[in-house]
Amino acid sequence: MLKLHHHPMSTASRFARLVLAEYGERCELVEERPWERRREFLVINPAATLPVLFEDSGPPIVGGIVVGEYLDETRGAFQRDKRLMSEKPLERAEARRLTDWFLDKMESEVTRYLIRERVFKLEMRADNGGGAPDASAIRAARANLKHHLRYLGWLVESRDWVAGKRLSYADMAAAAALSTLDYIGEVPWESEPQVKEWYMRLKSRPSFRALLSERVRGLPPSLNYAELDF
Amino acid sequence: MLKLHHHPMSTASRFARLVLAEYGERCELVEERPWERRREFLVINPAATLPVLFEDSGPPIVGGIVVGEYLDETRGAFQRDKRLMSEKPLERAEARRLTDWFLDKMESEVTRYLIRERVFKLEMRADNGGGAPDASAIRAARANLKHHLRYLGWLVESRDWVAGKRLSYADMAAAAALSTLDYIGEVPWESEPQVKEWYMRLKSRPSFRALLSERVRGLPPSLNYAELDF
Repeated sequence: MLKLHHHPMSTASRFARLVLAEYGERCELVEERPWERRREFLVINPAATLPVLFEDSGPPIVGGIVVGEYLDETRGAFQRDKRLMSEKPLERAEARRLTDWFLDKMESEVTRYLIRERVFKLEMRADNGGGAPDASAIRAARANLKHHLRYLGWLVESRDWVAGKRLSYADMAAAAALSTLDYIGEVPWESEPQVKEWYMRLKSRPSFRALLSERVRGLPPSLNYAELDF
Repeated sequence: MLKLHHHPMSTASRFARLVLAEYGERCELVEERPWERRREFLVINPAATLPVLFEDSGPPIVGGIVVGEYLDETRGAFQRDKRLMSEKPLERAEARRLTDWFLDKMESEVTRYLIRERVFKLEMRADNGGGAPDASAIRAARANLKHHLRYLGWLVESRDWVAGKRLSYADMAAAAALSTLDYIGEVPWESEPQVKEWYMRLKSRPSFRALLSERVRGLPPSLNYAELDF
């Protein structure tokens, strides 16, 4: 049995859930609020990051990219043409570069700030970092988002999928990031029609259903969040 | 032929060089100063990060961890007991968690600041971020370093190597980070004897020789940087 410690608005958690769903894996979900630094969670993962996956009574598998590699080795390798990674080392390197781009680079320039200021702060106590949103962080993140959307637009325009000819982890990572931002209405879809068209393809996949039907307590999603044709 | 774009004081570049040397791979080195955002380099890697590896006339392989995975697939897999990754998915996950810890988490809490303030600023023009070192960044990084050393001490005390029973990428990543900091005399070795003992074992490996003999222009290394018994 698989068990995933996650937060519904953590991009890396969403990435792991999309991969699990693509491979048809059922998984128990445990919601974590990493900013609370729960003692039992820190023992599992001293970095206090999400997601963390457990398989049966095995040790913790920590972090979106590490979970992705583990699932590629234990599930993907037996999926033939449904595998979300190429078999070729150079194509795998390109998918990894872009998975890292959307889970790490975009996270540290855009997603982390918007989600923290607009979502996590609603749930945080004052002594855990709660309080009023920081308008300058939001402004900077929105400005950075434009560059990431333009880059993603260029990628999906010049290739079939984000990392090349096949659907891969890079698509799951980019879609996970955009889906968290879309929940809070932060994606200016009209500015990048190619990105919108690509995201509609992703959103229509059965693996997306659970994310689209989920709601964060006290925070309704943007108007078209769950619409497949938006 | 392999070609690596690197900087001698970039931890992720040192990690890649250690792995290449462990596998006996010769490699042409091209020094980059990522802060100059050289146009040809940005075309290769729009994230402007190091290292970037090329194999023959193939596409760029970008980032320390991605280079590591590529080398595991194309070299490590044929190295039997000299492979720097286990064959077992759960052990691979633990090595990946800790490789990421030292190349990414420690980088963003310690190494990036100390190297930037004390080394890169010497080479940067004023319009590229040069200027006097930021004393408060240095202070914060030094305080964070203590926690990372304590964690590394706990790891190598409770295991044979950083990630478990075998020498792995996690050792290369931790040693790469410590070696850049040791060059500028920032590692308080006496505070963590276990870390010192482990680092002496690493430092004595032939793969370390090139790093220990290299010098940064205008910046002599700390007194014991190249001493195997320090």
